Amino acid sequence: MRDDATSDLRNEVVGRVTIRDVALEAGVSVATASKALNERGRMTSETRERVRTAARLLGFRPNAMARALVHQRSFTLGLLTSDTYGRFTLPVAAGLSAAMSDRGVSVFLCAIDDDPERARLNLEAMEDKRVDGLVIAGKRIDRTLPLNLASARMPVVHVVAACPPDGVGFVPDDEGGAFLAVSHLARLGRRRIAHVTGPRSFAAVPLREAGWRRALGEAGLPPFGEALCGEWSERFGYETGQRLFGAAAERPDAVFCGNDQIARGLIDALAQSGLGVPEDVAVVGFDNWELFAQAARPPLTTVDMELKDLGREAGLTLLDMIDGKPVEPGLRRLPCRLVVRRSCGGGAP
Amino acid sequence: MRDDATSDLRNEVVGRVTIRDVALEAGVSVATASKALNERGRMTSETRERVRTAARLLGFRPNAMARALVHQRSFTLGLLTSDTYGRFTLPVAAGLSAAMSDRGVSVFLCAIDDDPERARLNLEAMEDKRVDGLVIAGKRIDRTLPLNLASARMPVVHVVAACPPDGVGFVPDDEGGAFLAVSHLARLGRRRIAHVTGPRSFAAVPLREAGWRRALGEAGLPPFGEALCGEWSERFGYETGQRLFGAAAERPDAVFCGNDQIARGLIDALAQSGLGVPEDVAVVGFDNWELFAQAARPPLTTVDMELKDLGREAGLTLLDMIDGKPVEPGLRRLPCRLVVRRSCGGGAP
Repeated sequence: MRDDATSDLRNEVVGRVTIRDVALEAGVSVATASKALNERGRMTSETRERVRTAARLLGFRPNAMARALVHQRSFTLGLLTSDTYGRFTLPVAAGLSAAMSDRGVSVFLCAIDDDPERARLNLEAMEDKRVDGLVIAGKRIDRTLPLNLASARMPVVHVVAACPPDGVGFVPDDEGGAFLAVSHLARLGRRRIAHVTGPRSFAAVPLREAGWRRALGEAGLPPFGEALCGEWSERFGYETGQRLFGAAAERPDAVFCGNDQIARGLIDALAQSGLGVPEDVAVVGFDNWELFAQAARPPLTTVDMELKDLGREAGLTLLDMIDGKPVEPGLRRLPCRLVVRRSCGGGAP
Repeated sequence: MRDDATSDLRNEVVGRVTIRDVALEAGVSVATASKALNERGRMTSETRERVRTAARLLGFRPNAMARALVHQRSFTLGLLTSDTYGRFTLPVAAGLSAAMSDRGVSVFLCAIDDDPERARLNLEAMEDKRVDGLVIAGKRIDRTLPLNLASARMPVVHVVAACPPDGVGFVPDDEGGAFLAVSHLARLGRRRIAHVTGPRSFAAVPLREAGWRRALGEAGLPPFGEALCGEWSERFGYETGQRLFGAAAERPDAVFCGNDQIARGLIDALAQSGLGVPEDVAVVGFDNWELFAQAARPPLTTVDMELKDLGREAGLTLLDMIDGKPVEPGLRRLPCRLVVRRSCGGGAP
C-alpha cells in the first residue's frame, strides 16, 4: 500500500542522518536496522552489533518521535499552573525542568491563570500532545486548580496544591518548618516567642502554628499569647508590630512570622519604636523569598520551603508512575530548611 | 514492505477513535480518509464530504502527532530561560503561554540556569522534539544566554535579552518608560528631579537616564545633578537617600529611581529623616514589581514593563516567522506603562 501519510511519517521519523543511511552502512534492511537499534525483534547479536556500530559511526541520533514510537512514550510532561505571578511556581518549575532534562524528558508549561476555560484548553492540548503525565502546581496547599482530571488517562502529581485522597501530592512540611524556626529561637535563649501570621483560612496557618506550639512545648516555654492571624502583608506585620510593642504590658522577645512580608513590616515597626533587631527582639520569617529577606534591615532569618526540591521530587515520582513502578498514594510533606541571617541573633544553628 | 516501526507509527498517529474507524464508516481506504481530512490528494468532493461527515459523527479528533505530520509542524515552541528566579521570565512565559494556547500551540519550558551544559542539553531536546521555533528569554537586555544558536535550524526570537544584529528581539522601551515617569513628575510641579539608579554596566541604566534627561529637557528643567548609579538594591536606595537628604545643601523635590527596590530603600531613608512622601519628596520606581510596589509606604508609583505583552508579541511574531511571513529583523522596543500610586502625589495623570 502506498500512502502519502506514511511516507511523510517516515521522513519525519528519521533525523539528519537517517535510519536508511544506517541500514545501508550496515548492509541490512531498514526494518532490521530499526529493530536492532530499538532492541526489539530477533536477530543475531552480530547483526545487532553491526547496526549499532554503523549508527555510532554515522552519528545517528534517533529523534524524539522515533523514540516515542518505540517506547510508547512521548518523553514529555505537562506542568499546569495557576500561579502566573510565579513566586511559588517558578522554583518548582525550575527544579522539575532541570531534573527532567537530565533524564531526556521535556516539560510543557501551561499557565492557566485560574481560568477554567483556559485550563480545559490546556488540558486538551496536553492530551493531544500525548504527554506521559501531568504536574499540577498551585499557590496554596488547600486549593485545587479549576481542572477536571477525572477523565485524564495519565499519571498526575500535585505540588503546592490540594491533592485528592487517592492522588499523589507534594507540599512543604509547614509544621516542621515552623518547628525548626521556633526551636532555633528557644535555643538562642528567647523566652517570650510570639507568632504573627496570615489568615486562618489558609491550611498553612494552623500547621505553622502547630509547629510553633510544639517547639515551645519541647523547650518548656508557654506560647506568648495566641497566634495573631491577619493578612500575608507587610501592612499587617507593621500594624501588628505597632500594637505588640506599643503596649506597656509585657512584650515578646522574639516573633515568629508566618511569612517574610509580615516579618518585614514588623521589623519596620520595631525600628520606628526604637527597638533593636535582634538585640531587643529576634524576628524570623517564612518563605525565604530572597530579595525580600536579604533586603530586610537586618537581613531576615527565615524558613525555605525548598520548592526546587519539591518540583524535582514530584517529577521523579511522576516518572516512576509513568514507568509503572508502585507509588503509594498520599501527600508527601518535604522538609523545610532554616536559613539563618542576622534578624534572629546568635549566628549559625 | 512490512515494517514494525511503520505499524507502531500508525497506531500512534491515530487517536481514540481511529482514522481506520472513520475510513470504515465512510466506506473508503485509510489513505483516502486521511487525505480527505488533511485536504490533500485528489478525490471527488462527495468523497471528501462523506469522510468529513463520518469523522464528525464519530467524534474523530486528529491527534497532535497527526496534525504535525500533515502540516509539517509540531505546534510546539521552546522557551529557554536563564531566569529561574522568575521575576522577569514568569510574566513573559505567562503572556506567551496564554497567546499560544489560544492558537493551539504548546510551549516547552527549559530552565537553563545560566549553565552552558544544561543549555546545550535543552537545545538538543528542543531540536529532537522538533519544536517549530524558540523563544530565548533572559534577565537583562544586554546579555545573551549561553547558547550556540548558529546551528539551530528554526526561527528564534529574543525577549529581555541581547539580540544578534540579524535577529528578532523584544525588549521594554526603557527610555520611553523613564520619560513617562519623569514627565509625570514635571507635570505635577516638581522642579528638582534627581535620578538614583543601578550600575552603569547594565544597558537599561543609560537608557533610563536618557529618558530622564529628555523629559527634563522638554519640561525646561535642568537635571538635578548627575544620575547616581550604584546597585539595584534597597540598601543602595537607602544609603543614597541618607546622603541626598542628609546634606544641608539644596535637596531634590522628587527622585526617579531605576527600580522599585531602590525606591523602597530611598523611601525608608526619607521616613527616617522625617521627610514626607509625597509631600516633601515625590518618589517613582521602575518595574512595578507589585508585591514590592504596593507594600511601600506610601504605595509606589512605578513603570510597568508590560512583560506579559512582550511574551505575547514575541510568540505571535515567532508564529509569523514559522508561517514564512516576512518579519523584519531587529529589536522591537515595546511601550511601558506608568502605574500611578500615592508616592508621586497628585493623583491620576
